[in-house]
Amino acid sequence: MAVYTEVDDEALEEFVARYDIGRVVSCKGIAEGVENSNYLLHTDQGPFILTLYEKRVDPVDLPFFLNLMHHLAESGVKCPVPVEARDGAMLQTLEGRPAAIITFLHGMWPRRVTPRHCGQLGSALAGLHEAGKTFNATRANDLSISGWAALFAACEDHADEVAKGLHEELGTELDHLRASWPDDLPKGVIHADLFPDNVFFLDDEFSGVIDFYFACTDFLAYDIAVCLNAWCFEADGAMNVTKAHHLLAGYEEVRPLTDAEKDQLPLLARGAAMRFLLTRLYDWVNTPEGALVRPKNPMEYVYKLRFHRGVTDIGAYGLK
Amino acid sequence: MAVYTEVDDEALEEFVARYDIGRVVSCKGIAEGVENSNYLLHTDQGPFILTLYEKRVDPVDLPFFLNLMHHLAESGVKCPVPVEARDGAMLQTLEGRPAAIITFLHGMWPRRVTPRHCGQLGSALAGLHEAGKTFNATRANDLSISGWAALFAACEDHADEVAKGLHEELGTELDHLRASWPDDLPKGVIHADLFPDNVFFLDDEFSGVIDFYFACTDFLAYDIAVCLNAWCFEADGAMNVTKAHHLLAGYEEVRPLTDAEKDQLPLLARGAAMRFLLTRLYDWVNTPEGALVRPKNPMEYVYKLRFHRGVTDIGAYGLK
Repeated sequence: MAVYTEVDDEALEEFVARYDIGRVVSCKGIAEGVENSNYLLHTDQGPFILTLYEKRVDPVDLPFFLNLMHHLAESGVKCPVPVEARDGAMLQTLEGRPAAIITFLHGMWPRRVTPRHCGQLGSALAGLHEAGKTFNATRANDLSISGWAALFAACEDHADEVAKGLHEELGTELDHLRASWPDDLPKGVIHADLFPDNVFFLDDEFSGVIDFYFACTDFLAYDIAVCLNAWCFEADGAMNVTKAHHLLAGYEEVRPLTDAEKDQLPLLARGAAMRFLLTRLYDWVNTPEGALVRPKNPMEYVYKLRFHRGVTDIGAYGLK
Repeated sequence: MAVYTEVDDEALEEFVARYDIGRVVSCKGIAEGVENSNYLLHTDQGPFILTLYEKRVDPVDLPFFLNLMHHLAESGVKCPVPVEARDGAMLQTLEGRPAAIITFLHGMWPRRVTPRHCGQLGSALAGLHEAGKTFNATRANDLSISGWAALFAACEDHADEVAKGLHEELGTELDHLRASWPDDLPKGVIHADLFPDNVFFLDDEFSGVIDFYFACTDFLAYDIAVCLNAWCFEADGAMNVTKAHHLLAGYEEVRPLTDAEKDQLPLLARGAAMRFLLTRLYDWVNTPEGALVRPKNPMEYVYKLRFHRGVTDIGAYGLK
């Protein structure tokens, strides 16, 4: 939930006039996206999303994200598209911040995930990976193995305040991940943050993916590992093998996994759990009292990490 | 900013099917309204507002609010209208809370108030008061003179923490208001919370009023007093006489003030300042550290109160 930047009336009108999208009739801050200010903008041509990029997004990365969305949409991936202004640029400035107008994607993210959702997610993710093959730009994944040590160093002193023994557990896990992290799996563009609130469905049919602001170049199977963590655990912490099976089977309908990807999936899932565990731990420790955004409890991902640590092969995720 | 209640996918579909408004294609929490959960709902027939009423609104009052909006809209006041479900009722239940679907009002609230806005506001407010004359229901104003003593009692011990001497100042002021509050001014339905974020404009033309959840029966001129406080002061604390003049002149174009209303306006403005001062003081003192909604500083209204205390006649508001 976030609206950080108030947009002045006249500034908004001047901004929208740079586009060929009609006249503003409404503009409301929406409670989606923690990193940026998002507005649901109505013009007489229909709804759009207006995004102002706040400080957690590096402006240098914005062309990568916007060009990627544009490329994916052109390749048939269901996702919103940044609208070009009359000057041809997708990236503009508003209230002193980088800003873009993005097409409106119909659908809602699933509050209650079903195996059917997971199957459709899997196919859509594989389609995104296939479409990404023809995208030329690259962006390193700062939040993968290379970034975890620094992230842990920035909050490790407080790990035991969250759970006794957590500091030692995470240190050992990081050593293991560093020693065994693969380097030869198929790589390409990944979404890297494909949580349920970034995937829309309409009448129980997949309608699109949003929020490409963590997208980067990394192992394709790492994206699946993120989804295993984000979509296939129940509220009580148990892995739902049916959901995992649907996710992987749906993926393989579009892009079959290599044997190496299958072998490494449990390790990648540990890594993906570590990534969200560490950013949550960092936010948990560094969010000042009274902040508007309440940090998420990192323990959810500690439990997920422990699950994956016990997995020896992909059968645990319902794939033979 | 507020979305308190998450709406489950299936519950939403079942809910919307109770109405003849088409099929849901999108539903996003919006960052407007502090008291309720508001969603911008798109169906294939267009946009609507879905409101779930949270605990700060007494369910007993909801029929008054919804019937009032319905009546005002039928009388030509520009405001959103609660949609009747197929069963004829405007008030339904969703996720265990009272809920309603309201038509979508085009326009945006003015981030930068101009005298022109104030003039149009004045005329619209008078139109609302005129249309309210034929509305039969009544609702007491709990947040007027009769409620201030209890509100003050609930937070007076902390008044001096906000500003030294504030406790004595407010006590004296309350005594004065109690002793001199009028009882014979023209009464009727008032909005009672007509701040800029509740008034929409489109291309600099008034397009409507929203948020009737403080509406009640009270002196009509008290509504003007609220607007003087909410619209006619600059960020540096100075009263803008031009704005006040436009507000009052715009009002009188539609409904001329009586002499008694003019005489009492400075006192009503003190009372209106006291009302917002007290609720802000209460929230300031009672909001726990770490709450999602940051309370507004009550001092803004202390300065406004002091201004009105120095006013001897309506000339200070630009009216001869």
